[in-house]
Amino acid sequence: MFEKLKAEVCRANLDLVAEGLVIQTWGNASGVDRERGVMVIKPSGVPYDGMKPEHMVVVSLGDGGAVEGNLRPSSDTPTHLELYRAFRDIGGVVHTHSLYATAWAQARRKIPSYGTTQADYWFGDVPCTRLLTPREIKNDYEKNTGRVIMETFRKLNPLEHPAVLVASHGPFTWGRDVQEAVHNAAMLEFVARLAGETLRLAPKTRSMQRALLDKHFLRKHGPAAYYGQKSIPTL
Amino acid sequence: MFEKLKAEVCRANLDLVAEGLVIQTWGNASGVDRERGVMVIKPSGVPYDGMKPEHMVVVSLGDGGAVEGNLRPSSDTPTHLELYRAFRDIGGVVHTHSLYATAWAQARRKIPSYGTTQADYWFGDVPCTRLLTPREIKNDYEKNTGRVIMETFRKLNPLEHPAVLVASHGPFTWGRDVQEAVHNAAMLEFVARLAGETLRLAPKTRSMQRALLDKHFLRKHGPAAYYGQKSIPTL
Amino acid sequence: MFEKLKAEVCRANLDLVAEGLVIQTWGNASGVDRERGVMVIKPSGVPYDGMKPEHMVVVSLGDGGAVEGNLRPSSDTPTHLELYRAFRDIGGVVHTHSLYATAWAQARRKIPSYGTTQADYWFGDVPCTRLLTPREIKNDYEKNTGRVIMETFRKLNPLEHPAVLVASHGPFTWGRDVQEAVHNAAMLEFVARLAGETLRLAPKTRSMQRALLDKHFLRKHGPAAYYGQKSIPTL
Amino acid sequence: MFEKLKAEVCRANLDLVAEGLVIQTWGNASGVDRERGVMVIKPSGVPYDGMKPEHMVVVSLGDGGAVEGNLRPSSDTPTHLELYRAFRDIGGVVHTHSLYATAWAQARRKIPSYGTTQADYWFGDVPCTRLLTPREIKNDYEKNTGRVIMETFRKLNPLEHPAVLVASHGPFTWGRDVQEAVHNAAMLEFVARLAGETLRLAPKTRSMQRALLDKHFLRKHGPAAYYGQKSIPTL
Repeated sequence: MFEKLKAEVCRANLDLVAEGLVIQTWGNASGVDRERGVMVIKPSGVPYDGMKPEHMVVVSLGDGGAVEGNLRPSSDTPTHLELYRAFRDIGGVVHTHSLYATAWAQARRKIPSYGTTQADYWFGDVPCTRLLTPREIKNDYEKNTGRVIMETFRKLNPLEHPAVLVASHGPFTWGRDVQEAVHNAAMLEFVARLAGETLRLAPKTRSMQRALLDKHFLRKHGPAAYYGQKSIPTL
Repeated sequence: MFEKLKAEVCRANLDLVAEGLVIQTWGNASGVDRERGVMVIKPSGVPYDGMKPEHMVVVSLGDGGAVEGNLRPSSDTPTHLELYRAFRDIGGVVHTHSLYATAWAQARRKIPSYGTTQADYWFGDVPCTRLLTPREIKNDYEKNTGRVIMETFRKLNPLEHPAVLVASHGPFTWGRDVQEAVHNAAMLEFVARLAGETLRLAPKTRSMQRALLDKHFLRKHGPAAYYGQKSIPTL
Repeated sequence: MFEKLKAEVCRANLDLVAEGLVIQTWGNASGVDRERGVMVIKPSGVPYDGMKPEHMVVVSLGDGGAVEGNLRPSSDTPTHLELYRAFRDIGGVVHTHSLYATAWAQARRKIPSYGTTQADYWFGDVPCTRLLTPREIKNDYEKNTGRVIMETFRKLNPLEHPAVLVASHGPFTWGRDVQEAVHNAAMLEFVARLAGETLRLAPKTRSMQRALLDKHFLRKHGPAAYYGQKSIPTL
Repeated sequence: MFEKLKAEVCRANLDLVAEGLVIQTWGNASGVDRERGVMVIKPSGVPYDGMKPEHMVVVSLGDGGAVEGNLRPSSDTPTHLELYRAFRDIGGVVHTHSLYATAWAQARRKIPSYGTTQADYWFGDVPCTRLLTPREIKNDYEKNTGRVIMETFRKLNPLEHPAVLVASHGPFTWGRDVQEAVHNAAMLEFVARLAGETLRLAPKTRSMQRALLDKHFLRKHGPAAYYGQKSIPTL
């Protein structure tokens, strides 16, 4: 069962490698089927070479229990589950240790919105979580990672800020489906690199003007969008 | 109609991707036919994969109205039109969000002329615009982007400075035709990277000497040029 | 004799080039056969192109004398021998001048543990040796390089810190066999680059919390590990 | 005539492009035949694509006059000639605008010897020239570029320091033949990048110890060398 979602999730995990966002087995992508109440995710610590849809693991969105598959799910499964439970409109989640986004996470800094490149995808900063407490690390670490993300997003719309940096760790991204989550992971890596380079040229660079942020985000997103085609053309 | 120019503009847009200057759909190239009073430009938000000359959009250089093509032109069309109207000797315009040039634009800094590499293409700095006002952003944003570029070039010859950084946004380049505009976009990315690296090695680096700038720019450009061959050899 | 080990060591040396860790002839990998008391290592200053298992040199683990092979062993042979003698559980050693790890060695700084990426492989910092004295350089330089590494590891477990930076020189890595030593050389290069980028974003970044370091290292290593699969699946 | 040298020089120019050291037409390589008193060099401003040995230009080592070839020689020809006249043991010269070496030249800083990677090729720093005076720039610019290099090497052995950074311009390298000059251009680019990265990790890094510099340079060069094989093995 769940053949289509397994194929999409497998494809997404391989795309992360092809995009240079995952080295070794440091990364995972998942997708959700909310009607049937399941999440499909990459198995833990398995090589990408030769990975196939049938290796994907199906777990219950409710209690996280195994539904299908012989392999252990990614060790980050509890974090993915927390994200799907809290962010009702998302359909895919991606976690990587991609170089530039992870450097910001290690620096424990949000990525400021320095220009229109970022404003096309993020309606402002890319937020960074607080550090977990020793107690949150010792017990239910992966679940608490999800909870500290929730805490960071109390006043943020996850579809207007489709990524978070987990302090001392790395980025999680999401989207309406798993392909969009992969796409946002690639965009995040680019804006993370761009913001770092900007900061080195002018360490005191301030965030972009509010009016410009509104203009760029809203010309691509929301009811007044005028970027792109009214219907996607068949080329 | 306009088959030759459409083919050139399509080719130029694909070259930007091949040169690594455009990721996703963040970029556009256009060419002009001044005799017939039209500009040919990439459609907005359309994937590069499978893009063909017939997808290019033809608009009037006069009022910007559609002349040919079923797709919406690039959302940056009004900026391109402003550039063609003000800079009478240019035949092609390119806009990208290429990494290093965009970082300088986000840092809101002109790129100083640190050495002969830049002096072979720019007769001095690569200028950066002022920020737009909230009013200029809210109404006619793309047209006002063109106007703030004009303001920056009041005392500059566009063919001696074939690029501009739009503050908090990214670079525009141009040339006698669209191929030259693409070439200048690639050169700009290289000098932007080189200048950033120079600045990190020696943050107080001063601009190159005027005599050296004159020597290098003028041995390649203008009536006393002695670089290259008198006539282009057939190899 | 030693055909299998020679093939593995030859393969490892070529993998270093393929991974971009070795340019020119700046690097070498070796493997050990402790039962037979020999080390197999790359010949000195020989081009990688056309390198075959039969070119590998076999030396005695005891006195370093030639056992098999017509070529001179790598000039770093005495360093490799010292490492095998002191670190009884390792089976492979790699030396490179890879860009980012070598920069830390030249900066004479240990790589702090800034996040979970590093904590998956290192149980803390990547240590850096002291400088050798002029006397240690003049006589038995390569052997003394091994000894200063031992000095650095007096209170460290080499399998929990599978790399060292030799000050003003470059990295050595090791593992249970030569393939693992190559893998650790690639991981080291990534964490060296990531740590440098982190430091530039926030020069005062502190090391990660002890609880998080324990969590990540120990979920992958040791008796309580829960990362990956209980048995390696056949995909 | 000079078919062998033309083929070598053509090959060397194409190798510079393949190694990523030359973009556009920013670079040139030459070789010398001291017995016949000629230098063979790349033509000026000619595309690399389709370049063949017969396009190389032969000029007199004595007066720089044309000996063979219909194309103009590289505009840097007078600099190459000055180098061959002053450095009697060199057989090839290369000029590039490669990214990292050019950044040091623009920063007008010598590259300090931070570690053994550089010490394998340079017996100390990579020197940087003084700025040319306006008068030296206005008349005989390319010849004066050669002369300011000579001035920089008054107390240096060019075979122990096979490169120079020309301030506000870029690097020249040389070697016993043109292939070695290309090889040294690639090595220079690597050590320039490595030194920049080192400086960013620890801005106060001091040069390596004299004893270590001697050890590394002299174990590869000179009568007491013990690196590599006594005779080059046939693999």
